Amino acid sequence: MMVADREAGLGEPVMARLESLAGFTEVPGELTRLYLSPAHKSAALQVEQWMIGAGMEVAIDAVGNVVGRYEGRESGRPALLLGSHIDTVRNAGKYDGALGVLAAIEAVAGLHASGERRPFPIEVVAFGDEEGVRFPVTLTGSRALAGTLDPAALDAKDADGMSLREALQQFGCDPLQISKVPRPPEDVLGYLEVHIEQGPVLEAEGLPVGVVTAINGASRFVVDLTGEAGHAGTVPMTLRKDALAAAAEMILAIERRATATSGLVATVGVIEAMPGAVYVVPGAARFSIDIRARADSVRADAIAGLERDLAAIAERRGIGMAMRRTYDAPAATCAPWLVEELEAAVARTGIRPRRLSSGAGHDALAMVDLCPIGMLFVRCKGGVSHNPAEQVTAEDAAAAVRVLLDFLRHLDPATATAREGQTTP
Amino acid sequence: MMVADREAGLGEPVMARLESLAGFTEVPGELTRLYLSPAHKSAALQVEQWMIGAGMEVAIDAVGNVVGRYEGRESGRPALLLGSHIDTVRNAGKYDGALGVLAAIEAVAGLHASGERRPFPIEVVAFGDEEGVRFPVTLTGSRALAGTLDPAALDAKDADGMSLREALQQFGCDPLQISKVPRPPEDVLGYLEVHIEQGPVLEAEGLPVGVVTAINGASRFVVDLTGEAGHAGTVPMTLRKDALAAAAEMILAIERRATATSGLVATVGVIEAMPGAVYVVPGAARFSIDIRARADSVRADAIAGLERDLAAIAERRGIGMAMRRTYDAPAATCAPWLVEELEAAVARTGIRPRRLSSGAGHDALAMVDLCPIGMLFVRCKGGVSHNPAEQVTAEDAAAAVRVLLDFLRHLDPATATAREGQTTP
Repeated sequence: MMVADREAGLGEPVMARLESLAGFTEVPGELTRLYLSPAHKSAALQVEQWMIGAGMEVAIDAVGNVVGRYEGRESGRPALLLGSHIDTVRNAGKYDGALGVLAAIEAVAGLHASGERRPFPIEVVAFGDEEGVRFPVTLTGSRALAGTLDPAALDAKDADGMSLREALQQFGCDPLQISKVPRPPEDVLGYLEVHIEQGPVLEAEGLPVGVVTAINGASRFVVDLTGEAGHAGTVPMTLRKDALAAAAEMILAIERRATATSGLVATVGVIEAMPGAVYVVPGAARFSIDIRARADSVRADAIAGLERDLAAIAERRGIGMAMRRTYDAPAATCAPWLVEELEAAVARTGIRPRRLSSGAGHDALAMVDLCPIGMLFVRCKGGVSHNPAEQVTAEDAAAAVRVLLDFLRHLDPATATAREGQTTP
Repeated sequence: MMVADREAGLGEPVMARLESLAGFTEVPGELTRLYLSPAHKSAALQVEQWMIGAGMEVAIDAVGNVVGRYEGRESGRPALLLGSHIDTVRNAGKYDGALGVLAAIEAVAGLHASGERRPFPIEVVAFGDEEGVRFPVTLTGSRALAGTLDPAALDAKDADGMSLREALQQFGCDPLQISKVPRPPEDVLGYLEVHIEQGPVLEAEGLPVGVVTAINGASRFVVDLTGEAGHAGTVPMTLRKDALAAAAEMILAIERRATATSGLVATVGVIEAMPGAVYVVPGAARFSIDIRARADSVRADAIAGLERDLAAIAERRGIGMAMRRTYDAPAATCAPWLVEELEAAVARTGIRPRRLSSGAGHDALAMVDLCPIGMLFVRCKGGVSHNPAEQVTAEDAAAAVRVLLDFLRHLDPATATAREGQTTP
């Protein structure tokens, strides 16, 4: 009881700030904070204040990331980057993204409170766009930092027809300065992200935190089907070319292949039938596929298999099909030295270290192009995320802060650098 | 050649007016004329002018129907009603509905031109709402005339939240006068509607027109499925309760049962997955079913079978299901005497009589509650309807006018009434 009380106490500042941050929303009564919205701006200014309070120098960069820097004892050292994102999905939970930013600020505040400086600088980044809800692009903040942001992304438009470029200007950013956002790799020691697990593993094992070894690779597709529209009352079943019936058969084929393949998940989350009238045989249909696997080869094989499955269904039904890849991210491996250092910190904090992989994508997925990455997962209730029912306990938030602080206090960048290039332990 | 030329010549006034009427649209570049829209009002005023030109007295009733009356030779006789509708689906063709109204006006104009009067009055009705696109009600005009319009329909709202009551007022109608629209059955001899076939039968048989024996019955349902939303990357396939995957399995079950049942068609035209994000396992899904058959018993059996099929799928997948009936119309039989009189007129016009049933619903479906009904179908290219590609030739339009005029000239209401109650020939 006493231990739990003490841990909950350590988590309370983070929990209070999570509640406070959840108040910055575009939709009263729920949490919806899309990239570059006024709610995002208010949240960014609040995060800036908290960073300043933790002893950091803060700037908002040209893509809307809030970046706080806590200087190191020695000058000219590469910085350790901590962070996550402060944008949300629509009707979101309070923890996805925000927990990682606030845990990082709290850990730096822990050093600052006792006047501790590490040899290396520490930066906390509150990325602006991880969820990719408002614009048809994603990981804008972390890609800009990693130098992999496609300049064409600035022309992407939101549902109201506003371009990302215009939205940045409205937010107070200067898109012309984006070229200055990327960090030189030699200036960065690594990137470490705390995030809710969004899955059931830690809860099942009774552990507050876990160490991520890799982020699963993911591919997304849009499938367009073209059949023949017709009157629902007059076209005989045998003469129909029903695009939605073809889509239905494809959805089941996707489900079947994913269920039969170990380590693979595939999801159809969006579907539309055109013209979309009760009394019209659908002449066209469109649906999305999201497919993920730990191993890139498993994912590639499944995609090839699905392309065959779907083409055969379209062919048999006389339906035209176009399958367009809209997103592709290989699996990202966490740096072995970061995994080991995190595991050591977890163990020192009195928690049994547990390794797991991430089914969801994260800012770390973009940061891996810049530097070694590491992730610490925090248990969430029922594995629920992207939902108001998302839940993390104060004890578990406290555990994450303690692990992070312990990690920062023990990390020896010289050792870390020497161990780079070794194989996964 | 000469016969075709002469026939095309007779059809030309109708074709010219169809073109002219197609100019009354809410959407430039396409034909979209929803019930009670400004485009509908302009079209109604134009139809009124054409009716006056054909010697009719005209009024627009309290639900927006344009009603023209060509008096009979003898007073106090029940009237023969001709008509169809002048509302359209979105991005419609020019012939669905409009052809029936304009052919009826042209036939009356034929009597008027030679000063002919039949013993009975003839009325032409341009109904305002057959398609049911704007409001979640349908056949408003013909139901009002038949006295079967549910007063609750006035509270139905369009997509902008405007009620049918408000829209009627905006159109210039007085909803308080709706109680005066229904006709006493003793005042009506019968209702005859010319309409494009919207199917492939007449084209396949090389016939310009055909005589309808019955309108197939139809039922519509909305199926709501409730599963469990989840992250597309983190929820294992075996733990999912994917509402869209369940819907897909149901759509195929519906297709399978309809294909296996003679005389039955079933269509899923609308589908939605919630929350509708690429990276979220759908926690809910909703789709429509439209099911039609010539025989009501076939339709009822199929519905009972589908309810079992869908419940079994929902049960096996652990998905909640609610199946709600939103529309139900039994098959409507055309009056045998009207079928015979129409057949005789077709034969006298030099066309081989062909009987067929209607897969689509029509204003006649509501009028059957008031009086004997009959329908004359006109060949349309490829059976295409509800589409800008809808096409009828001038020759075929002329054939419809000639059959109608011949029918009007030969109809003996005494004989007709005497033959009422006989069984289908």
